[in-house]
Amino acid sequence: MNDNTHTQIFSDVSHPVLKKTLDIICGKWRLYIIFQLSEQDRRYGELRRMVPDVSEKVLIQELKALVALGVLQKKSYNEVPPRVEYGLTEKAREVLPILQQIMVIGKTFLVP
Amino acid sequence: MNDNTHTQIFSDVSHPVLKKTLDIICGKWRLYIIFQLSEQDRRYGELRRMVPDVSEKVLIQELKALVALGVLQKKSYNEVPPRVEYGLTEKAREVLPILQQIMVIGKTFLVP
Repeated sequence: MNDNTHTQIFSDVSHPVLKKTLDIICGKWRLYIIFQLSEQDRRYGELRRMVPDVSEKVLIQELKALVALGVLQKKSYNEVPPRVEYGLTEKAREVLPILQQIMVIGKTFLVP
Repeated sequence: MNDNTHTQIFSDVSHPVLKKTLDIICGKWRLYIIFQLSEQDRRYGELRRMVPDVSEKVLIQELKALVALGVLQKKSYNEVPPRVEYGLTEKAREVLPILQQIMVIGKTFLVP
């Protein structure tokens, strides 16, 4: 991203880049779900157990939203019984280091 | 942040680091306000003009929240009439490159 792009973003809060960024990061469970899938794909039931404090309704809604945003993909395996797993898309893998890096922000502000 | 810290964060969504990170980034206007103050301190009236689509109530609320989080500081100048400006704290300046970097996320996902 060059300086010119930065200027455009900074001068328009409704800029699609800012909106898209916030859509992906914000939401109590989004980063958490992404991090849980950073090492391997997971079935819904596994994710349900890994995110114990979330209601079923909210987890399904967040997974759907992340799929719609292009962050996650559902992969169906032709097995009996059928197996469906959630995994990160290629784009999500591309930005994963940045997503992990932003944790430094919280860390910096927690230090007294 | 070492691998161990990452593991801790990724295994607990209520981890204060994750919560603090989201508090700072999330909120439609927070990143926008931070970027507006990245080059110089601004008076309330200037910010009001720079963020034209926000209601006065919400802008004041967001500025207060960012001050409480330690992202912004209010500086009072002993002038007549008194001058008060908002500016980034030292910690905010420290993480500014990361805050700017996360725009790459939205950019990546907007590319078809």
